[in-house]
Amino acid sequence: MGCVQSFRELCDRQKNTNVRLSLPAVCIVWQTAMIILFGVFIRYNEESSPRWVEYRKAKNISSDIENDFYFRYPSFQDVHVMIFVGFGFLMTFLKRYSFGAVGFNFLIAAFGLQWALLMQGWFHSLDYSDGKIKIGIENLINADFCVAGCLIAYGAVLGKVSPVQLMVLTLFGITLFAVEEYIILDLIHAKDAGGSMVIHTFGGYYGLSISWMLYRPNLDQSSRLQGSVYHSDVFAMIGTLFLWMFWPSFNSAITDHGDGQHRAAINTYLALAATVLTTVAVSSLFQKHGKLDMVHIQNSTLAGGVAVGTAAEFMLMPYGSLIVGFCCGIVSTLGYIYLTPFMEKYMKIQDTCGIHNLHAMPGVIGGIVGAITAAAASESVYGHEGLINTFDFEGEFKDMVPTRQGGHQAAGLCVAICFGVGGGIIVGCILRLPIWGDAADDNCFDDEAYWEIVSVKKKL
Amino acid sequence: MGCVQSFRELCDRQKNTNVRLSLPAVCIVWQTAMIILFGVFIRYNEESSPRWVEYRKAKNISSDIENDFYFRYPSFQDVHVMIFVGFGFLMTFLKRYSFGAVGFNFLIAAFGLQWALLMQGWFHSLDYSDGKIKIGIENLINADFCVAGCLIAYGAVLGKVSPVQLMVLTLFGITLFAVEEYIILDLIHAKDAGGSMVIHTFGGYYGLSISWMLYRPNLDQSSRLQGSVYHSDVFAMIGTLFLWMFWPSFNSAITDHGDGQHRAAINTYLALAATVLTTVAVSSLFQKHGKLDMVHIQNSTLAGGVAVGTAAEFMLMPYGSLIVGFCCGIVSTLGYIYLTPFMEKYMKIQDTCGIHNLHAMPGVIGGIVGAITAAAASESVYGHEGLINTFDFEGEFKDMVPTRQGGHQAAGLCVAICFGVGGGIIVGCILRLPIWGDAADDNCFDDEAYWEIVSVKKKL
Amino acid sequence: MGCVQSFRELCDRQKNTNVRLSLPAVCIVWQTAMIILFGVFIRYNEESSPRWVEYRKAKNISSDIENDFYFRYPSFQDVHVMIFVGFGFLMTFLKRYSFGAVGFNFLIAAFGLQWALLMQGWFHSLDYSDGKIKIGIENLINADFCVAGCLIAYGAVLGKVSPVQLMVLTLFGITLFAVEEYIILDLIHAKDAGGSMVIHTFGGYYGLSISWMLYRPNLDQSSRLQGSVYHSDVFAMIGTLFLWMFWPSFNSAITDHGDGQHRAAINTYLALAATVLTTVAVSSLFQKHGKLDMVHIQNSTLAGGVAVGTAAEFMLMPYGSLIVGFCCGIVSTLGYIYLTPFMEKYMKIQDTCGIHNLHAMPGVIGGIVGAITAAAASESVYGHEGLINTFDFEGEFKDMVPTRQGGHQAAGLCVAICFGVGGGIIVGCILRLPIWGDAADDNCFDDEAYWEIVSVKKKL
Repeated sequence: MGCVQSFRELCDRQKNTNVRLSLPAVCIVWQTAMIILFGVFIRYNEESSPRWVEYRKAKNISSDIENDFYFRYPSFQDVHVMIFVGFGFLMTFLKRYSFGAVGFNFLIAAFGLQWALLMQGWFHSLDYSDGKIKIGIENLINADFCVAGCLIAYGAVLGKVSPVQLMVLTLFGITLFAVEEYIILDLIHAKDAGGSMVIHTFGGYYGLSISWMLYRPNLDQSSRLQGSVYHSDVFAMIGTLFLWMFWPSFNSAITDHGDGQHRAAINTYLALAATVLTTVAVSSLFQKHGKLDMVHIQNSTLAGGVAVGTAAEFMLMPYGSLIVGFCCGIVSTLGYIYLTPFMEKYMKIQDTCGIHNLHAMPGVIGGIVGAITAAAASESVYGHEGLINTFDFEGEFKDMVPTRQGGHQAAGLCVAICFGVGGGIIVGCILRLPIWGDAADDNCFDDEAYWEIVSVKKKL
Repeated sequence: MGCVQSFRELCDRQKNTNVRLSLPAVCIVWQTAMIILFGVFIRYNEESSPRWVEYRKAKNISSDIENDFYFRYPSFQDVHVMIFVGFGFLMTFLKRYSFGAVGFNFLIAAFGLQWALLMQGWFHSLDYSDGKIKIGIENLINADFCVAGCLIAYGAVLGKVSPVQLMVLTLFGITLFAVEEYIILDLIHAKDAGGSMVIHTFGGYYGLSISWMLYRPNLDQSSRLQGSVYHSDVFAMIGTLFLWMFWPSFNSAITDHGDGQHRAAINTYLALAATVLTTVAVSSLFQKHGKLDMVHIQNSTLAGGVAVGTAAEFMLMPYGSLIVGFCCGIVSTLGYIYLTPFMEKYMKIQDTCGIHNLHAMPGVIGGIVGAITAAAASESVYGHEGLINTFDFEGEFKDMVPTRQGGHQAAGLCVAICFGVGGGIIVGCILRLPIWGDAADDNCFDDEAYWEIVSVKKKL
Repeated sequence: MGCVQSFRELCDRQKNTNVRLSLPAVCIVWQTAMIILFGVFIRYNEESSPRWVEYRKAKNISSDIENDFYFRYPSFQDVHVMIFVGFGFLMTFLKRYSFGAVGFNFLIAAFGLQWALLMQGWFHSLDYSDGKIKIGIENLINADFCVAGCLIAYGAVLGKVSPVQLMVLTLFGITLFAVEEYIILDLIHAKDAGGSMVIHTFGGYYGLSISWMLYRPNLDQSSRLQGSVYHSDVFAMIGTLFLWMFWPSFNSAITDHGDGQHRAAINTYLALAATVLTTVAVSSLFQKHGKLDMVHIQNSTLAGGVAVGTAAEFMLMPYGSLIVGFCCGIVSTLGYIYLTPFMEKYMKIQDTCGIHNLHAMPGVIGGIVGAITAAAASESVYGHEGLINTFDFEGEFKDMVPTRQGGHQAAGLCVAICFGVGGGIIVGCILRLPIWGDAADDNCFDDEAYWEIVSVKKKL
């Protein structure tokens, strides 16, 4: 800890937010690298190449409608909206950081999805016959998922970092994500349809650890800007609602065709509905005069979607989904009321958007729910084929049984936490270097640092 | 009327908007009840359970893509957006009631859809072999539809009721909805694809009757807040446009696979387009200097979608859809100009959002259009099989003929009106009880009553 | 040019923005004409009529899911969102013209799509057996596309024209569009999936030519209003993001079933991602202090979607898409920095939204990329059947070869430019007539001219 302390002092030099060289350099060089790597590695798969006609005939597929595109494209577009409008607008709640919220979200997501296509491709879609990654619609969805992990992390450091730091956070975040995802899904053979573990738990702890490393003791100098105004809260509700509405698509986007996608959508729909009621209840109960707090409505109402992620395709049952949502609304809202101030005061973790309450905790709950639901699976509930299909008890895992699957799920959760915390500390160290153009403590949460803003508006 | 009057006086005591006990109690208790009822009654249907694989083989279904999920999920997500963003943001037009508009809309929709799954399930999806309700994607759509009826009613009382009253309004609204829907669709065998009758007519008159029961003679004391500001009107346009754009999905979401969904989408698309032009025309013609009024653009442009609801899946013909839209744009805009002030002044009905012009009247028009279109159906236009499929002249209704179907449609419309008016009066009585925490007359349309708002904003 | 000059002087009389007679007259008369023309010409096609059941059996189609509705409806809804929310909100960036941006966009799109169904129908969907236009979901998408051309043109004249002028612009724009589209796609047999040529190049030059004809030398008198405020820029980001997210649907909406739609979506997704990074880079590099300019983020990030339109369904390859996006981000942003001021100062073209940088230039680039990609096509890459399917080398074009196709693509681009410039000059002439109710030079960019606005807001 002493070492960390002295390292911090080393880095607290005079701040300069001019990113005129570093930001264009990073964007141009990294984008050029993407073009080269895509040129070497990435090709269309058999469903998106013109050879689909021949493939269809060879495989005896009766109709174009059986192309995976038609199973997944509607969900993909919903997920895409969640990534860019959902996450972007959810973070516009700060009175003077809406440009940064929606604009930097846009930037890092656009970079991250390219890097994710490569990283995830190497692990999951590499065609060993020619050494190429073959992509289709499912790869695009997975790339968006991968980006979500980094956008969650952005929530913890919102307003306190430069766009260059965010690009670095994303580069490492995507890399770590792809590795932990490979370990959890392929090596450990845990299932995680909606990414409670691989996306939310990892992304949450990754962001919190970075925020801990970037602790700003004098952040209260920016407190005049660290709040919302009336219409910025309405903008944030656009983000909340698009996340909330499309979460059933998120959790069902890459589950099995047929009943898998169907069931995942139903479970998520129900969990989210229950969360809204308990969020409102707790928010009202713990404020004086019973007034509701917009922060809770904007964030905690989403916790049920996070927590139902892993188990969404399992036989969680409709009432099980409601129970998960019920609990998460309470836990998440109490987190905003008690835990966030506690963490800031005693643990030196400044969490701008409260991602601990919206992603990290519900993600862990989701991992546990998934482990229990998997361990409790039985042929009497799933049917013989249904059990095999749902849990992929095939190939090298054909002797797997539900109880052991439950253990594997728990192991997956631990891996996600370790990668999140460990990766966050390392990346946080890198981001402390005094070269990234982040703002001084009294200049955080202010779009003026990185955006041309007409001066007449300063009066607002 | 004397009895109503004295009852009103009884209820007009000192108002207290503190809902710190009642709101959390209602949310927690009702959500707990939902969990228990779901546990007892609700299960996945054969298309969302893991036994789908076996079912598919037994039924000789060739591909997963024939799961109902793929026919209806894109429409479901569009409907979901209409419910939460469409209705929610449409009501943000008031300068200081945006939180209440979008937040309480969120709350009651999240509760309502759970209760609707149960109520509609008992009537329509009960599996008598085991006494369970089996749900799939179509149930979710129907639950959203059911909720829409209550959100329409919310429009009439926007800004004048407490969240606890809204929960009560929703509880009874969903219950009444499920009963009238069962009577209209199953007993009377009327068709109502887009719900002109069961959703809009019922919801409209339900809300208007409640508003009449809750008449506030001194509401002008809040007149400083009963208007829009520039950017609140832009927020409201988000709601308008998402309703307008996705209305073809609304009207086609539960129609027959194939040509039924296809035709319903086309008819709705056309009717809405025509409505925009006549709304603009009337709005400009009846204002001095020919200036347009945002209230009309936000609301009346949607009337065509309401009015084409019942007949959307019939052979209304493209020009027929345009004619319906043409008329509704005119009727609805004139309603805002003349009828709403008249109803407030002489009929003691205060209709905040003008739902009479957007839902009730166009809904009635839609019911009439549906009756005429059904009565005029013939085998020469629909084809033999087409006629049977479109009107479900099967089973106990296999001897039905189009002219009689037209009569049944008209009967359905009457039932919707009766349930709306009658139910609204009863529920309005209940909501007058002085226990619900609604605001005083000089404190309506103000988010301060139920939301924590940073005081610095009061200057706006 | 002298003639143009004197014509201009003739037209610069006292301005009167009262459209109380002209706007309602245009709306009612034109809508009535639409109803009559629809009555005479427009019918459902075999997939949206009740005879689908019989058609299915006759054609041996195994399932309702093969109805074109299920291939294209999700894309259609995304395109619909782009037209109404995307274009509408993108133009809300002006501080006091948000009503006009989103409201007039709404009006002309609603009219334009009806006229487009007729115009495009006569050219492409006329059933010669009975002289009727048979419409289905693909016609709705094409109508939306057609409208997009006119909305692009609106961007150039935003804030400077009356709604009546916009209706005229749309009437002629749709007509010209349908003709040039017929020439380019049918006669020349160029391919243009995403409309780089027929939509963006045509729409861009059409709008620029009109703006040139309507040049206002004293427009700086309105300069106080020709800028954004903080929250109007956030509103505009809603438009940007919905355009950006749904562009893959735009470019894939009418491509071939199966791999065609799949590949077009992937290519567009990638091109847009690359554009974001180079836009940010150039925006930061060319501003003092490296601050980002919201105008660039709102607009130039979309240029990649425009430029990949023609080649989206070809084997552009993933890295090819990235390269196209890379270049367009740079070109478009530099256009905003250097070209727009140059054109206003020296070429008398006032381009409010900078459509030259977002649509015209990227559209031309897209046409060129399409020609090169087509010319480079080969059986070794596409497969024998794939090549024929992708380029429709069938019927009278069965002897076509890729190199010649490339030439045809280039010819198509020239036609689009000619129609845009020529049509725009003619329509611009018509719009200069002093009868349309446009605002005076010192009263542009102000919603007060055409909208009832509560006076208290003037203080903002």
